[in-house]
Amino acid sequence: MKAIRNYDRYVEKMQQIADLSNVLSLLHWDQEVYMPADGISIRSGQLSMLSGMIHDLQTSPGLVELLRELASESGLSADEHKNVEVTLRDTTRKLLLDRDFVERLTYTTSNAFVAWDKARKESDFSIFAPWLEKIIALKQEECRKIGYQDHPYDVLLDEFEPGMKTRTLDTLFAAFKPELEELLKQISATGPDTHEDSFMYLNYPKDKQWQAGLDVLGKMGFDFNRGRQDISTHPFTISVGAKDIRITTRINENNLHEMLWSCIHEGGHALYEQGFDEATYGLPQSEAASLGIHESQSRLWENHIGRGASFWDYYFPKLQQRFPQQLSTVTSELFYAAINKVRPSLIRTNADELTYHFHVIIRFEIEKELIEGSLKATDLPTRWNELYKKYLGLDVPDDSSGVLQDIHWSHGSFGYFPTYSLGSLYAAQFYHQATLEISNLEKEISEGNLIILKNWLRKKIHRIGKLADSDDLCRKITGESLNFRYFIDYASRKYRSIYRFSELTVSS
Amino acid sequence: MKAIRNYDRYVEKMQQIADLSNVLSLLHWDQEVYMPADGISIRSGQLSMLSGMIHDLQTSPGLVELLRELASESGLSADEHKNVEVTLRDTTRKLLLDRDFVERLTYTTSNAFVAWDKARKESDFSIFAPWLEKIIALKQEECRKIGYQDHPYDVLLDEFEPGMKTRTLDTLFAAFKPELEELLKQISATGPDTHEDSFMYLNYPKDKQWQAGLDVLGKMGFDFNRGRQDISTHPFTISVGAKDIRITTRINENNLHEMLWSCIHEGGHALYEQGFDEATYGLPQSEAASLGIHESQSRLWENHIGRGASFWDYYFPKLQQRFPQQLSTVTSELFYAAINKVRPSLIRTNADELTYHFHVIIRFEIEKELIEGSLKATDLPTRWNELYKKYLGLDVPDDSSGVLQDIHWSHGSFGYFPTYSLGSLYAAQFYHQATLEISNLEKEISEGNLIILKNWLRKKIHRIGKLADSDDLCRKITGESLNFRYFIDYASRKYRSIYRFSELTVSS
Repeated sequence: MKAIRNYDRYVEKMQQIADLSNVLSLLHWDQEVYMPADGISIRSGQLSMLSGMIHDLQTSPGLVELLRELASESGLSADEHKNVEVTLRDTTRKLLLDRDFVERLTYTTSNAFVAWDKARKESDFSIFAPWLEKIIALKQEECRKIGYQDHPYDVLLDEFEPGMKTRTLDTLFAAFKPELEELLKQISATGPDTHEDSFMYLNYPKDKQWQAGLDVLGKMGFDFNRGRQDISTHPFTISVGAKDIRITTRINENNLHEMLWSCIHEGGHALYEQGFDEATYGLPQSEAASLGIHESQSRLWENHIGRGASFWDYYFPKLQQRFPQQLSTVTSELFYAAINKVRPSLIRTNADELTYHFHVIIRFEIEKELIEGSLKATDLPTRWNELYKKYLGLDVPDDSSGVLQDIHWSHGSFGYFPTYSLGSLYAAQFYHQATLEISNLEKEISEGNLIILKNWLRKKIHRIGKLADSDDLCRKITGESLNFRYFIDYASRKYRSIYRFSELTVSS
Repeated sequence: MKAIRNYDRYVEKMQQIADLSNVLSLLHWDQEVYMPADGISIRSGQLSMLSGMIHDLQTSPGLVELLRELASESGLSADEHKNVEVTLRDTTRKLLLDRDFVERLTYTTSNAFVAWDKARKESDFSIFAPWLEKIIALKQEECRKIGYQDHPYDVLLDEFEPGMKTRTLDTLFAAFKPELEELLKQISATGPDTHEDSFMYLNYPKDKQWQAGLDVLGKMGFDFNRGRQDISTHPFTISVGAKDIRITTRINENNLHEMLWSCIHEGGHALYEQGFDEATYGLPQSEAASLGIHESQSRLWENHIGRGASFWDYYFPKLQQRFPQQLSTVTSELFYAAINKVRPSLIRTNADELTYHFHVIIRFEIEKELIEGSLKATDLPTRWNELYKKYLGLDVPDDSSGVLQDIHWSHGSFGYFPTYSLGSLYAAQFYHQATLEISNLEKEISEGNLIILKNWLRKKIHRIGKLADSDDLCRKITGESLNFRYFIDYASRKYRSIYRFSELTVSS
């Protein structure tokens, strides 16, 4: 009886924390979607106050004592035990940070977001620089407070991808990069890219794009009773409650890509959150295993479905009906080639699946340098432009298409970018497994039956939440740890058919 | 020095409470404007948790002690002293309620709102009845906890209209009602109403109505950097921060009235909130004097400007330009007559300025009976329909156009309705004073200079906040206490010109 009673008390405390965290999420959502300009004056204080309150609850002596008791108690089920274990691990990390630090970080990032937004609009890094310096100093303080063995950046990675080390990523990227470069070389060796794609840049009215996006989300199985979509400059997914998962998209009337990929990408994130078991609200089982796994869900839908031939076999006629003027002379094959053009570009969120990884690698390099202290915030634009030249061969014309393009640093999110590449690699590996386990998956998709895939993901990934870490989860689902070979194989097959080159040979 | 330091500590505590109260407001706003249906499962708990936290801060021994010290301290300015005095009075009331009660009330009303919404949509009072019973029991408990001398309803009135008594309202309505009835008799004696108004019910597209509403709000001086407008079923104004005042409107494509009056009405409320001195954020000086005074601001704009001839002299050509198909053959005189038709109707929010007061009187009678316990929740529809027959001569066809039409009781707001009538009466008295003090006010308005009126209200009313109670404020501005004669005079003049009857004679 005692074990059960203690566990119930733990659940109650965790749900209270979740209720308050969801309030914080709503404040963030509102700030980026609807808040009037001058609302920021109060908002920063509200965010920092609530962050402090949440931190107090998360590190309260009562909860810590309860967790320690529960950790050694028999009579818990395996899942219950795992929930407690994960909470205890997360709490131990949080105990190393004090409320004052959490409030300072939240207050700084809330103001930094405003500075970054202004800097980006005016393409003037100097507006953001002083705030970025403050944030870097705070993140360095966080690394010191939490402690590390090898590299301070390990501390930041661990927040988003529990257990991930800088050294592991160095090794992964060192092996992955040459294979990616070789594939890109094969593509560019086919000569100038002649795939027609000008129809993607015709005028697509906002309202009709909005409706198309909602329609695609519905097909994916997004539940509009438990979520909604709005417009924001920077698309994101946020959980405001167990049954209230919100996404945002952006619409560019002269570029159909933007709405399509942001809708499908955020839709993938949202299906993960909508897929948690609501009976475990507030517990690790209702949290993402890691951001890498979160990103695997968005990338799987974006790349393997949204940029896949099967989906457009089914959906292109519907899109054509919605936009007859723009698409009546286009075929689904032409459309498929147009949405899969590979070319180096300046903006990460507009990048193709292949060059995308270089955008991540550049940010990874820079973040390590900033956190080590070997690169100063004020020197960042120079370093950024240097790396874009080196990895993508591009000249960055201004800060707004360069170092100011991403929201992450203004949020204090360092160590976040690598999860994007990890997510793509996990996505390829998971999708490969799905094709083995779901009979005729591609055929089902080409008939519009996306729910079969959603249900597989729900069972294999969503319902597990954070009860397994990324590596456990990956081994449980696919029988092996993360292996970038699945991504290279998928990409080689796909681009070989689009660009018509022969078998991939890795140059020595 | 000690006085200053204590006062600063008081201000800091009050601002912290305001920050948290504004978070609560955002949750309410979201619930009524954007929250997906299933979001309610977590929302009720969030609202009740935050209400409890706010109540704890508002009644914390530290704050109470500080207030008692400050109340007897010399060295405070007159305004500082008044802020402390009002906070101490409000706190004393709150100390009579415990956190558990506040959480129960919030939790119940949050769920009751959902039940009411469903009941109204299905026109089935029985869905709402059990929740209404719970709320009435809670409000009766509140009356007992806070205590009263004469009538329990005094306790509820006092929350919205500090100092107001049931007996005072009984006296006011007893004198006001026959004069209103006489005026209505004079109007109906002019025979069938032949003013053409069918053009108000043509098709007015939603987007264009929305733009028209924003335009009118802009003319009134609504600051969109410090606020926003959204759509909701039940228009309201809410403060989410010192510089973040939000309003909602509703749009009916086949009834131009709804958007017009909700925009202008809520706009009037919003100007009050936007007009508080932001330097006094969190203090009584940044709160409304009472709901009656709040309503005086919305009614002043809605009735004296929005339903006035001068404003439409200026604005009708602009509205005509926006809706040429619907309004090209209409004159501003015709429009003025159409928006001022007097006729008994079922729905309070659609009522004209005269019969409106009977809607309020009916609710006032019913609330007294419910709180006394002489009327049971289950008997409410019968009583409602009986009073609509008695006062307005109307048969109520169903609950949704009857007892379920208002949101207030689902929110637990008993004692709120009378402030609507008080607001209209204050509005007439204030507006009369404005015409004495602002030279050529009607001419200014007919030239579109509404800002001159906004500035007068800002100085006379908005900046004072809650440092004066309604009666003090009214005497300070107009030299006398509330006097319904100003409303009767205004209304007689106006409707005499529209319906062309001779001098008003009160029948004996």
